[in-house]
Amino acid sequence: MTRRPVALALVHHPVLDRRGDRVTSAVTNLDLHDIARVARTYDFQRFYVVTPAQEQHRIVERIVAHWTRGFGADYNPHRGEALTLVETVSSLDEAIEQMRRSTGEEPLPILTGASREGISYEKCRALALEKPLIIVLGTGWGLDPSLFEQGWPVLSAVRGPQRYNHLSVRSAAAIIADRLFGC
Amino acid sequence: MTRRPVALALVHHPVLDRRGDRVTSAVTNLDLHDIARVARTYDFQRFYVVTPAQEQHRIVERIVAHWTRGFGADYNPHRGEALTLVETVSSLDEAIEQMRRSTGEEPLPILTGASREGISYEKCRALALEKPLIIVLGTGWGLDPSLFEQGWPVLSAVRGPQRYNHLSVRSAAAIIADRLFGC
Repeated sequence: MTRRPVALALVHHPVLDRRGDRVTSAVTNLDLHDIARVARTYDFQRFYVVTPAQEQHRIVERIVAHWTRGFGADYNPHRGEALTLVETVSSLDEAIEQMRRSTGEEPLPILTGASREGISYEKCRALALEKPLIIVLGTGWGLDPSLFEQGWPVLSAVRGPQRYNHLSVRSAAAIIADRLFGC
Repeated sequence: MTRRPVALALVHHPVLDRRGDRVTSAVTNLDLHDIARVARTYDFQRFYVVTPAQEQHRIVERIVAHWTRGFGADYNPHRGEALTLVETVSSLDEAIEQMRRSTGEEPLPILTGASREGISYEKCRALALEKPLIIVLGTGWGLDPSLFEQGWPVLSAVRGPQRYNHLSVRSAAAIIADRLFGC
């Protein structure tokens, strides 16, 4: 059986800040580059950048344009090749709707969090054979608890041998993609 | 058997630039944070930042001081906890010497590169039971070929299902650490 399309979604709202308040985080240039390159390496179909802030959409689109059509396209084509996967959306619901439209099937969001227990990577790989998935990553101090009340599966947190679990979202995205689809 | 100490070394010289020339790359703030947090998560003993540029040492030391003793230590103690692993050295030889001194044994450098074939992750894990290791990562367009002429083992490149292999060094460090020592 072959894998169904899988997308990544990097959520900037609703996420928590360090005090546990619900906020909209700012888009970070290196998140786009690092996670787009991960998405390209591991054959993700789309990399949704989720934020309701329309001026942040424009920033993302300017970065993508620079590397796919502007000066950067010649300077380093590998970056553009990855950034073509980026799509700005205003909400996770909009990402789900876009993926529903592009695949003709109902996609299943898979949530992630640094201190969550949930389904195994093996189970998630099995789900990827059945239906389109959206792996959902939170910026800031992680996805807002309201997202965990939707009944969507949660992927067990990445753990090393230590109790310390404060990886950047860039590192977590890389490790999760490799655990799911690495060779 | 328990694992012997393992260190990470992030090399800024000698590395290649996009034209294949040997250069000294600049230290990047997010490399320090992301890779230090990976090193802490996966129980690395040290994170050597390798550059002969002394003013770059001062930049690194200022960043580390901010998060371990300055304002950042209160603002986000997890960053400081990771950055205490950072040690600036002028060359890979100096990293080896430091680790030799701290462990009382001869450490073995393990080189990495995006298009290299070499030993498996399983083999590298087995080596980590025998002697102290230094996992060596290159910035820029990768480690200078001269380093591959020293007879040190090379770790097989991280691969996804696609031919595209242009992960950032931050992503590569995260995936390599997880493949070697993830739970």
